[in-house]
Amino acid sequence: MMRVSEEEAKRIAERLNYRWPDRTVVAVAQEYKSGKVLMVASMNKEAVIKTLTTGIVHYWSKSRKELWVKGATSGHVQVLEKFYYDCDADSVLLVVRQASLIACHEGYRSCFHYKVEEGGVKVEEPSYE
Amino acid sequence: MMRVSEEEAKRIAERLNYRWPDRTVVAVAQEYKSGKVLMVASMNKEAVIKTLTTGIVHYWSKSRKELWVKGATSGHVQVLEKFYYDCDADSVLLVVRQASLIACHEGYRSCFHYKVEEGGVKVEEPSYE
Repeated sequence: MMRVSEEEAKRIAERLNYRWPDRTVVAVAQEYKSGKVLMVASMNKEAVIKTLTTGIVHYWSKSRKELWVKGATSGHVQVLEKFYYDCDADSVLLVVRQASLIACHEGYRSCFHYKVEEGGVKVEEPSYE
Repeated sequence: MMRVSEEEAKRIAERLNYRWPDRTVVAVAQEYKSGKVLMVASMNKEAVIKTLTTGIVHYWSKSRKELWVKGATSGHVQVLEKFYYDCDADSVLLVVRQASLIACHEGYRSCFHYKVEEGGVKVEEPSYE
């Protein structure tokens, strides 16, 4: 698990550019070791600070307008291993250990399980190889 | 390179939920083979159709308000290998071959080159291991 002090977390949170709706950054969760992209969600400043200080991934729910601990009800929490931000400081990349290996509320490992192909869409776990 | 017919591309484009600003979906580009997450950008319906029919990644520039061929000026184009969308149909995952192995306009392989650590931020290529 990766964590930093509250002071450090606040310094990082100040550097980000919350220019997406509801003053958020886009967060991409990628599975530790496998490298699979699990999901895209939003983080406001509070979610960034909570994630960095606890090591447990928090997002901002744009539909419910509230801070949200991923897996709080399902148990499918995400434990932070690495935290990156991009050149525009408006997106973050979270490398996480995914509890139960299920990130998607539909029961799949990754939310990106619809694969486009000629002739239709196939339900398939994403692969970069 | 992955491509589909115009008919198929339009069918897929119709299924997506363009609920991010400027009627876009969030696009995550992941490098083919290495699995490195390269960047986050936006795609409107036209960008989705152009990407799927040409196999060359097109984005929507929210700042310039125009369709944009990634690498049109720098030469750092992205060739599509796989195209996934998520359970909410508002984010897509593009598995791409990155020309010159440089996705970032700052000359880095990935835009996510700022790594958060206790004591400061380190410039480092992202790794999921």
